[in-house]
Amino acid sequence: MQQGTLIKHLGKHVGEEVTIQGWLYNKRSSGKIQFLIVRDGTGMVQSVLVKSEAPELFEMAKGITQESAIRVKGVVREEPRSMGGYEMSVTGVELISLAQEYPITHKEHGVDFLMDRRHLWIRTPRQNAVLRIRAEIEQTARDFFHQNDFTLVDSPIITPAACEGTTTLFELDYHGEKAYLTQSGQLYNEASAMAVGRMYCFGPTFRAEKSKTRRHLMEFWMIEAEAAFFDHEDNMKLQEEMVYFIVQRVLERRRKDLELLGRDISKLEAVKLPFPKLSYTEAVELLKSKGEEFVWGEDFGAPHETIISESFDSPVFIDRYPTEIKAFYMKPDPADPKVVLGADLIAPEGYGEMIGGGQRIDDLQLLEQRLEEHKLPKEAFEWYLDLRRYGSVPHAGFGLGLERTVAWICKLDHVRETIPYPRMLYRVYP
Amino acid sequence: MQQGTLIKHLGKHVGEEVTIQGWLYNKRSSGKIQFLIVRDGTGMVQSVLVKSEAPELFEMAKGITQESAIRVKGVVREEPRSMGGYEMSVTGVELISLAQEYPITHKEHGVDFLMDRRHLWIRTPRQNAVLRIRAEIEQTARDFFHQNDFTLVDSPIITPAACEGTTTLFELDYHGEKAYLTQSGQLYNEASAMAVGRMYCFGPTFRAEKSKTRRHLMEFWMIEAEAAFFDHEDNMKLQEEMVYFIVQRVLERRRKDLELLGRDISKLEAVKLPFPKLSYTEAVELLKSKGEEFVWGEDFGAPHETIISESFDSPVFIDRYPTEIKAFYMKPDPADPKVVLGADLIAPEGYGEMIGGGQRIDDLQLLEQRLEEHKLPKEAFEWYLDLRRYGSVPHAGFGLGLERTVAWICKLDHVRETIPYPRMLYRVYP
Ligand SMILES: [Mg+2]
Ligand SMILES: [Mg+2]
Repeated sequence: MQQGTLIKHLGKHVGEEVTIQGWLYNKRSSGKIQFLIVRDGTGMVQSVLVKSEAPELFEMAKGITQESAIRVKGVVREEPRSMGGYEMSVTGVELISLAQEYPITHKEHGVDFLMDRRHLWIRTPRQNAVLRIRAEIEQTARDFFHQNDFTLVDSPIITPAACEGTTTLFELDYHGEKAYLTQSGQLYNEASAMAVGRMYCFGPTFRAEKSKTRRHLMEFWMIEAEAAFFDHEDNMKLQEEMVYFIVQRVLERRRKDLELLGRDISKLEAVKLPFPKLSYTEAVELLKSKGEEFVWGEDFGAPHETIISESFDSPVFIDRYPTEIKAFYMKPDPADPKVVLGADLIAPEGYGEMIGGGQRIDDLQLLEQRLEEHKLPKEAFEWYLDLRRYGSVPHAGFGLGLERTVAWICKLDHVRETIPYPRMLYRVYP
Repeated sequence: MQQGTLIKHLGKHVGEEVTIQGWLYNKRSSGKIQFLIVRDGTGMVQSVLVKSEAPELFEMAKGITQESAIRVKGVVREEPRSMGGYEMSVTGVELISLAQEYPITHKEHGVDFLMDRRHLWIRTPRQNAVLRIRAEIEQTARDFFHQNDFTLVDSPIITPAACEGTTTLFELDYHGEKAYLTQSGQLYNEASAMAVGRMYCFGPTFRAEKSKTRRHLMEFWMIEAEAAFFDHEDNMKLQEEMVYFIVQRVLERRRKDLELLGRDISKLEAVKLPFPKLSYTEAVELLKSKGEEFVWGEDFGAPHETIISESFDSPVFIDRYPTEIKAFYMKPDPADPKVVLGADLIAPEGYGEMIGGGQRIDDLQLLEQRLEEHKLPKEAFEWYLDLRRYGSVPHAGFGLGLERTVAWICKLDHVRETIPYPRMLYRVYP
């Protein structure tokens, strides 16, 4: 069928008569002029319909309801005061389908009301802008890895054993066997890195937590990378380059969406390389200097991360966490085995941990010892131990939570708006 | 740490001394010369170590076992007879870790043996080549959509209701509610298309089938697209352009991997646009002309698809299937409602259905009627029906099975080799 012109390409057609196809987002009328605001998913444009020029069309257009599907013909002109910078002088309007009374009006609605109608809510300009930014971040991350010799190796979603305890795992009946939805592809990623050198994966991960905070989803997407012959320092460098690359790309390509969201763009422009780095111990000191009570050896909570992030314009690494509170596979610092060669990357503006990463134990005996200390069943990890039996090398990796990154870049109050169809504690619909 | 040179970049360093890091894939010795074949996941290179030039190094190298991790220093030279086109004259070898006796030797192994060691099997040249081709196809598909104004909108993995019956669904306990792993994002994609115009998603999908064929996996990745204002013809054009784009990119960037697999590349070069198109009815006639017994109205099985594909060099569309055997949402052909505006794309060389797609019903009443005919619970589809209540437009979409596409392009016997960690009827390990 006739494809028409996408609204985002109107700038290429100034002075021409084009046809756009989309939905009526809103309408204003002065009695003599109707302003039809049309969205097509790539942008919005105001289309100006003058009664004296086309009285019958004008009458017909009066009956078009919000979210009705329409085809609008008109001449494109520059109009800096108008959204997107262009307007159309309407020469024709065709009604494709008349919408019933649309539930999401231009007044305020409660979050539960909107969440129940998420399939419609995503049409609104703010949600639409967030989804476009999310998509840009996703493509950018992939481009980054592709350009840096990282091979995509998908990790499995259905997994046989728990990586770190089963309390937060979704369990599944797999043809009579117990299986679980993945929380992280990391162990597989280590195997994949030994096969392709540098790898990344990017897929959904799951956590069956009984949490109902603004930072938690049951289903979220994670970008994970793992590289052979990368040490902890290489790994942090890779992370900061990736995050910086993403921020620059969004600034370049999705600036209008950021503006639509009312994002303070200067905050993103202030992100600079290299990212600041604190040791865990320094971070504890920083907290104490701000009057927080904190005991060395504890893990940071969200409020601590927020306080730490407030001292920096860029994401900040917290380096060398206590070995005790980190996963069994984290490599101890040879210079100080109380801490590991692992860091979290904390987002600015109180968005918390974006990335967790570090160098992995490459020594077979130490890894076996750690499994024992953590009371993990060795049989389930035999294949993982193989990676240390056959050509073990120094290697490191990380996982970036996509939704928290989107939330930070868009400055959203809650991660539920960062994903098209959020899965939360009491929400699996639509 | 020192990163060294990736083997795939050796061509840029002819005449220079470089250091590569990787694993010993194989070794040959003449007594005076050792040939160390090193892999690093980006390629393989033969490194030549001459006893008279470095007697101590030569002795040490004798003890390096298969899959040991090593660092090799040497001068790069062109050598057309050698794999990859280059060789290294070794000036130094450093052992990073000595491998225990490697289970996957250079002789033949049974598939079950290899599958139990999939985490190691992926290191071998054939499996490695397949994974690189898979990654290239994945990135290419995303590039295609990005370039064609399609926005990535991730569909959910955990879903509340069954799209088409529950017998092949993995069921999940979602905090006390029943939920299922997605079989297809399509219904969500339709909602997303009404929000962003043209969308795609690309993620894992699941089918709990008790099938054990060479075409089935329990967990597989699907590329799905959905576009507002696309009709059936637009949809088929999009599909053929995407598949053609993928084939050209693999030919351009992964030719060496195809050669390593022994792929008859002329078969891929023979793929041409536009793809041939048969109506379902014509396909039935074709089968009959080949001596097959077939009754109009039945669905094709794998053997039928193979016979049909044998008549064509390119993937072939089978268009306008009987309405009776297709999903409830498929739009009937206004000129002949016995058939739908939907087509499957059948891969060449007997690889069967790659894509299923079609135009969707955009009329509310007809869709409600279809739900009833298919005995589907209307409540579960209320949100989906909303898409016809509020600004319904003609729209179409499709889903491409990644693993079958990889199998065809690589000409593999079984889809289990197309995915890093296959999930099959009796296999969820490693
Ligand atoms: Mg933390
Ligand atoms: Mg079929």
